[in-house]
Amino acid sequence: MVRKNHRFTLAARPVGLAKSTDFAYEEHEVRELADGELLVKVQYISLDPAMRGWMNDAKSYIPPIKIGELMRAGAVGRVVESKHPQLAVGDHVSGAFGVQELAISNGEGVVKVDPAQAPLPVMLSTLGMPGLTAYFGLLDVGKPVAGNTVVVSGAAGAVGSVVGQIAKIHGCRTVGIAGGADKCRYLTEIGFDAAIDYKAGDIKPALREHCPQGIDVFFDNVGGDILDAVMTRLARRARIVICGAISQYNNTTPVKGPSNYLSLLVNRASMTGMVVFDYAARYGDAIREMARWMAEGKLTSREDIVRGLEQFPSALLKLFTGENHGKLVLEVV
Amino acid sequence: MVRKNHRFTLAARPVGLAKSTDFAYEEHEVRELADGELLVKVQYISLDPAMRGWMNDAKSYIPPIKIGELMRAGAVGRVVESKHPQLAVGDHVSGAFGVQELAISNGEGVVKVDPAQAPLPVMLSTLGMPGLTAYFGLLDVGKPVAGNTVVVSGAAGAVGSVVGQIAKIHGCRTVGIAGGADKCRYLTEIGFDAAIDYKAGDIKPALREHCPQGIDVFFDNVGGDILDAVMTRLARRARIVICGAISQYNNTTPVKGPSNYLSLLVNRASMTGMVVFDYAARYGDAIREMARWMAEGKLTSREDIVRGLEQFPSALLKLFTGENHGKLVLEVV
Repeated sequence: MVRKNHRFTLAARPVGLAKSTDFAYEEHEVRELADGELLVKVQYISLDPAMRGWMNDAKSYIPPIKIGELMRAGAVGRVVESKHPQLAVGDHVSGAFGVQELAISNGEGVVKVDPAQAPLPVMLSTLGMPGLTAYFGLLDVGKPVAGNTVVVSGAAGAVGSVVGQIAKIHGCRTVGIAGGADKCRYLTEIGFDAAIDYKAGDIKPALREHCPQGIDVFFDNVGGDILDAVMTRLARRARIVICGAISQYNNTTPVKGPSNYLSLLVNRASMTGMVVFDYAARYGDAIREMARWMAEGKLTSREDIVRGLEQFPSALLKLFTGENHGKLVLEVV
Repeated sequence: MVRKNHRFTLAARPVGLAKSTDFAYEEHEVRELADGELLVKVQYISLDPAMRGWMNDAKSYIPPIKIGELMRAGAVGRVVESKHPQLAVGDHVSGAFGVQELAISNGEGVVKVDPAQAPLPVMLSTLGMPGLTAYFGLLDVGKPVAGNTVVVSGAAGAVGSVVGQIAKIHGCRTVGIAGGADKCRYLTEIGFDAAIDYKAGDIKPALREHCPQGIDVFFDNVGGDILDAVMTRLARRARIVICGAISQYNNTTPVKGPSNYLSLLVNRASMTGMVVFDYAARYGDAIREMARWMAEGKLTSREDIVRGLEQFPSALLKLFTGENHGKLVLEVV
């Protein structure tokens, strides 16, 4: 049986925001499986800010996507053919299957998931990379202590919303920074003590109001002016977790470094980068703990699902315009 | 007996480099000592980059100097009158005596020093605050391990030269960044493995050459472009110690934040601020260890001594033009 696959490859390195002509939509016939391989019908594709970085020809924590290569992406799907010893037809799996309908894999980095545990999109969200990034970044790098004030930027996003909720579970005062009244309302609904709308003006007065004892942990997904503003309110021995800098990913000018970084000196504070892959050996434990919190109603997950593989280029843009509400997922129909 | 004191007070908050009219040179009569006080004939005054920060009306790790107040400075001198129970006439003492000839003190923060242990200017240098800053910043914050590559900026200065030598004592590869061939020659004379002259052009190629395995520890006294360049060469899990940012202290524009700070993320690296005062309880042990290294010839101290209290404003400028060679000390004659 001949199967046809559709996929997006990288056609050109974007300058600034990625546009549709930076991608090529391709059709090709799927080859026969070799021994040990499996064929996955991709059902949900994770769209993440980090994808923008992978499109640049720059040294980073993983190699850039080459021109002509499949767009890298995490995804979940169902095994539809298998010559793999452990994974059978009908199994649901999660892995780096890319932006395509059908993925051939040798099983490396592929994890079997249980659709009874949570809906599949949640496997790409709170129980997937974003949730794991929040979990390890906050707990292992930010090291919050009950009573601490934890601030998170990009707070309504897939990572940020989980950071705030886990901080709350650990007894912290939790303040989220997000863009717009809708997102801020959502933050207070899921238990943040306060939400600051950066689109409503300078965030410094609001940081003063909501963080009267200073900021002990700042989990930063955004960079730029927000990072600078937070640095004016650090508490003694504050920990800044650098998870991302979405405000800077589409820059055509150099990245804006934090002008107020000498606040680290004044406050004996630290700023530390993290990449979730370093914690792979502990993913299982973290997912079990977060699934339990979800079952107990302490941890809420929200996904923003766009339908149709061909929507990929426009869907990706929603991340950078801030239009998505919750984890952005592309559903392959 | 009426004694006259001469001193410098802060007359105006400097804009950019401090100029002589930002200070007032004053003469006044020294009052009688109260019980518990001592009078110190100041002999050597420490001139440090941090003094520029104390002149700004900004929140920092200690309050700014007020207009009309004595210029704050560390110094060593001799007790010439005493109503203090522990300190007697003839004792040599170190303390924050300020930029003046005669200081009245209640003994708080005053430490007796032994002029037989080292010449008095060394008490303000390698066996004083700069040496202690190097010691705790490198060992407690930078946490070097034998075989690591340690880079230090402002390497020919009072702090940087000690950082490099202590790193060497701990078995590290040591690379210093300094301005000019003379300073670079001095660095190799005192045991640095390599010296990079930032005045000779872009330092990135030299960092590549001298740090082939990347940079494990960066001890930064300078900030600005040098911090940014170093960030392009960080090793995995690198530690950046933020001790100062002399390139930015006289800015009339905002501080230049490190554009390459996302290298912290890529390399899972950290950047941490330090202030030596936090380690006060361990000063004694550190000074004993450094004095032993000096006696063993493993640690060299160099002072640049300017004679005459009235030279204070012009001497201070040498720090920012990079003219000083070694710890800058003002000798009161």
